[in-house]
Amino acid sequence: MQLLIDMSPSFVRFQPLGNRAEVRVGTSLLDVAGRAGVSVESICGGTGRCGKCRIVVRTGADRLRPPTGNERETLSEEELREGTRLACEAVLDRTGDVLVEVPEGSRRGHHRLLAAGIDPKVSLKPAMRKVVVRMPPASLKDMSADDDRLLSALRRKARVAGTLSHRVRQDMPDALRKGEWTATVTLFRDKELVRIEPGDTSDSLHGIAVDIGTTKIVAYLMDLTNGKTLATESMPNPQIQFGEDVMSRITYTMRHDDGLDQLHHAVVGGVNELISKTCEKAGIQNDDVLEVMAVGNTAMHHMFLGIPSRHLASAPYAPAVRTGVSLDPMHVGVGIYPFGRVSALPNIAGFVGADAMAVLLATGLYKDRDIGMLIDIGTNTEIIAGNRDRLVCCSAASGPAFEGAHIRHGMRASTGAIERVWIDPGTHDIVCRTVDDAPAKGICGSGIVDAISEMFKTGILDTSGKIAEVGRSDRIRGLPDGTREFVLSKSGCDGSREITITQNDVQEIQLAKAAIFTGTTIALGRLGIACKDLSRIYAAGAFGTYVDAGSAINIGMYPDIPTERIRFVGNAAGSGARMALKSTNRRDLAERLSKKVEYIELATQDDFQREFAMAMFLPHRDVERFPSNGYAERTSG
Amino acid sequence: MQLLIDMSPSFVRFQPLGNRAEVRVGTSLLDVAGRAGVSVESICGGTGRCGKCRIVVRTGADRLRPPTGNERETLSEEELREGTRLACEAVLDRTGDVLVEVPEGSRRGHHRLLAAGIDPKVSLKPAMRKVVVRMPPASLKDMSADDDRLLSALRRKARVAGTLSHRVRQDMPDALRKGEWTATVTLFRDKELVRIEPGDTSDSLHGIAVDIGTTKIVAYLMDLTNGKTLATESMPNPQIQFGEDVMSRITYTMRHDDGLDQLHHAVVGGVNELISKTCEKAGIQNDDVLEVMAVGNTAMHHMFLGIPSRHLASAPYAPAVRTGVSLDPMHVGVGIYPFGRVSALPNIAGFVGADAMAVLLATGLYKDRDIGMLIDIGTNTEIIAGNRDRLVCCSAASGPAFEGAHIRHGMRASTGAIERVWIDPGTHDIVCRTVDDAPAKGICGSGIVDAISEMFKTGILDTSGKIAEVGRSDRIRGLPDGTREFVLSKSGCDGSREITITQNDVQEIQLAKAAIFTGTTIALGRLGIACKDLSRIYAAGAFGTYVDAGSAINIGMYPDIPTERIRFVGNAAGSGARMALKSTNRRDLAERLSKKVEYIELATQDDFQREFAMAMFLPHRDVERFPSNGYAERTSG
Repeated sequence: MQLLIDMSPSFVRFQPLGNRAEVRVGTSLLDVAGRAGVSVESICGGTGRCGKCRIVVRTGADRLRPPTGNERETLSEEELREGTRLACEAVLDRTGDVLVEVPEGSRRGHHRLLAAGIDPKVSLKPAMRKVVVRMPPASLKDMSADDDRLLSALRRKARVAGTLSHRVRQDMPDALRKGEWTATVTLFRDKELVRIEPGDTSDSLHGIAVDIGTTKIVAYLMDLTNGKTLATESMPNPQIQFGEDVMSRITYTMRHDDGLDQLHHAVVGGVNELISKTCEKAGIQNDDVLEVMAVGNTAMHHMFLGIPSRHLASAPYAPAVRTGVSLDPMHVGVGIYPFGRVSALPNIAGFVGADAMAVLLATGLYKDRDIGMLIDIGTNTEIIAGNRDRLVCCSAASGPAFEGAHIRHGMRASTGAIERVWIDPGTHDIVCRTVDDAPAKGICGSGIVDAISEMFKTGILDTSGKIAEVGRSDRIRGLPDGTREFVLSKSGCDGSREITITQNDVQEIQLAKAAIFTGTTIALGRLGIACKDLSRIYAAGAFGTYVDAGSAINIGMYPDIPTERIRFVGNAAGSGARMALKSTNRRDLAERLSKKVEYIELATQDDFQREFAMAMFLPHRDVERFPSNGYAERTSG
Repeated sequence: MQLLIDMSPSFVRFQPLGNRAEVRVGTSLLDVAGRAGVSVESICGGTGRCGKCRIVVRTGADRLRPPTGNERETLSEEELREGTRLACEAVLDRTGDVLVEVPEGSRRGHHRLLAAGIDPKVSLKPAMRKVVVRMPPASLKDMSADDDRLLSALRRKARVAGTLSHRVRQDMPDALRKGEWTATVTLFRDKELVRIEPGDTSDSLHGIAVDIGTTKIVAYLMDLTNGKTLATESMPNPQIQFGEDVMSRITYTMRHDDGLDQLHHAVVGGVNELISKTCEKAGIQNDDVLEVMAVGNTAMHHMFLGIPSRHLASAPYAPAVRTGVSLDPMHVGVGIYPFGRVSALPNIAGFVGADAMAVLLATGLYKDRDIGMLIDIGTNTEIIAGNRDRLVCCSAASGPAFEGAHIRHGMRASTGAIERVWIDPGTHDIVCRTVDDAPAKGICGSGIVDAISEMFKTGILDTSGKIAEVGRSDRIRGLPDGTREFVLSKSGCDGSREITITQNDVQEIQLAKAAIFTGTTIALGRLGIACKDLSRIYAAGAFGTYVDAGSAINIGMYPDIPTERIRFVGNAAGSGARMALKSTNRRDLAERLSKKVEYIELATQDDFQREFAMAMFLPHRDVERFPSNGYAERTSG
């Protein structure tokens, strides 16, 4: 230790955020974190029992008291060896600097930030680029046509030869003369001159990435001169009036002659609204936006582009268009510069769309050496597994339960939704955390998964998912139909409603998680590896980000791997769309990947029914697939 | 002679039309031609004096009486040697077959047919082609996307890889299934799939060639499966309401904010009307037309495409767009299949447009070994001279006199217009022929040229163009302003009006013909050859076709070359447009030619003023340039 450090106060520093607080001997790292402004997850109130406050001590471990009994019970040998501690149990014993890493899964509130998606670094190479060209004026000695003059100046300046959009033909004569023979041309992929402006306007270049989800549309206005996001806006998908889910919207297009038109105009209208809002926020004109890069599932993709989607609804579910597109905004009715482009990433299959491709881009799975998997959970859950050598994908019909549908007190993850549940294994006391810490109004996907995991852990559910008999707990009640429910949260004077988990709710979640796990199993089986050998899971989408990885494994939704191998990537579809907007290299890569990824139609797989039936159990009929939680012993014991 | 022929009646056959009539000894070939239905030109009433009924006897010359005194006076030694006779003087002497060739210049009415333009042979290779593709149906064993399925079938069938137009993306899913996985795709230049139809529709492929003249628009609907013209329609250019000539229309666009829009919509409206009319005539839908190939002068080209043309009005007269274009019909508002193409041939310069390029294509001048020249006479007269090695061009401001403007009794070549004039050199009797042989209402361009040529021949005009003194002829009258006029045609009880040629009329024609001859001289000077060495003149346009070549040379409008070297090509701009529509080879050639042709700006040439001044004389100040008519002798004598 250097003299200099002895002289200065000691700090606990928290990575990767960079926050710090002075060391106070006798306090826990959870408290220090609080003082440092780092929100570490904790549900049991710092009593060492919920196991959510895992942190990793990188340096200065010897300045902490040794692991406690609670820690030795909760953490694996391997975790302890690597320096993992429970923040509430790890107490500072003496002064000196300590470096602490807070893993993603232990950061509270971080999930919410993550919902906006990760932002992997991308070298800027947008499809649209501006070139400032100067040329000699037209004169009687040099009477050449404006187009010849412009193109020859462009060839000299940028060594590219492009064709002229019709708008450039129309704007060119006046633009060249107004700019005194200096003009800025915008090139699309160095092939077409889509725009000409007098003078030098190279400091302005904008594009919009759009993630068209079935329930929500998000738009990101990007400054393509530096890759920064200038404004983000979102709205519910206006198509919801025609049906909550993809299938009911497709059905609408089949039952109404102008159904496709209606759905097309609804979503385009929504996108246009977001374009206007983001432009207003950033203080630019819609006409300054040169490209929209859209992603969405195959049905959203088709409807946005006005392509019939009804063939997606019946076998063999072939998409009309797989290839990535770049088309005239006028052909879709998108309100940006009319001679710009509306682009979309390629689809992979009828139920693995451009949004999954965007997630694949954002995660970087395609370049990993080890085999990993990405899961984007929604009504259809897209799964892509593999590495840089081979990629397989499938779509699991997981249904809308995680979005709160078909769940008695289910709701979306908005204010008042129970999002975290912990049941004290000793007292069976229940702690529920709600979104915005508001009085409980219902329960969202991550809350249900937590609840079922905790109920299973504490014996309220058996492996078949059956709720224990009334009397086992005073929170178990009989229902008129002969089934039972579990009271998770009681109504309170703060306005909280009573929230219960019914037998039916448990079954809905079992069906959903079984669908996902079956997809995972079949995809990994195709690659010839066991679940436990997965090097990483990229959990995408809002639900995938909010859900507790330990709970998800505990109920058998995710394969049984160490939770630190699960990476939350938030709205990675939006991230991928932004990457593709920023870099043609990435969209060209997407084109290649979309041909490379092998699609597995789950329903036609011989082992599908059997795998699905086994995955209905908690965590699985074949408990050996979930060795780490000791169920094998418990069941056999 | 073979016995067989002796037994059968003898015939006079007329080439190239193929008509024939039985030989009657003692009758003239002019009479025989009449019986055969061949209209040979003749103005003097078959009296052997006007020299218009030149024909060439190819075989059986010994069955005719020898050339008469009139013939020896009118025809040159060379012409007589080659078998040329005056049809009215060549009388059959005995039976036996005779083969007679009627040169273009001697065919009456033929001019009118020619106005539709020549039709040089072109190997069919349209930009749009249809390919019928069959593919395996989508199934659970082969779930590939429709676009992949279609493109792979197309690659197998036609070995081309194209991109999809957005309309194809939209139509494809239903078209493939409706046609039970057989579909017809239309490819544009083997690059883009612009259309998809269920089943086999390869027997239908249509395009329209349009010649957008300043005064008249002509549209030709073509069957592109066989190259045939199915319907032709024409109309006055609706832009006429904004100005008679190009310059006044450009001025209109400069003086009115929406001027370009108005002129654009006017001409597009006209073109759309012709498209609908031709389609109706041929019994097809507008939507069946896949491409429009348009030609016009640079200003018409720009206005049709909605490109600003005002910079054409001032030095350095640079066109906005030289390069040939193919664009979305929607961008111009042309009413054909919306994802087809509106194309235009390349321009050459601000006043040598796509129409001149079309004439160049149609004449084949670009591939001749000897140096020739094409002249397309209008308000601006385009001149292109050269051969396969080198081509130069210029535009002469010849003004509207040949269209009847600025001429006292001038009118267009419609019913009642005097189009041919012959003055008996002995009696000074005047014969005028009118269009449709109707009572004279006025005089059109070819009539004025004839009149001035005849007036000059008979001494009514001197070389400066001055009308002789009153008294020299009882048809010469003084005018209040001190000038004189010549009464060409008297009013008659049939309703004929009195038609006169004023001193001012003569001067207008002198200015016009001087402009043309100066252009010719400077162009040929640039090529380093003398006028007399021109191997051919291609005379294009309606006026160029109607005007009598002999008269044109006589007044010094055309260079002094044997009239048989002058070829009338009618509306060659329309012919060239049809060729370009039928063959991408031709339009690619046009692209190369448009860069190759050297443009000469006449006004900046040092010798322009001097040449122009000399060309004002009849036929020229330097009479040695017009040796064949003996003026040199007459002037010096």
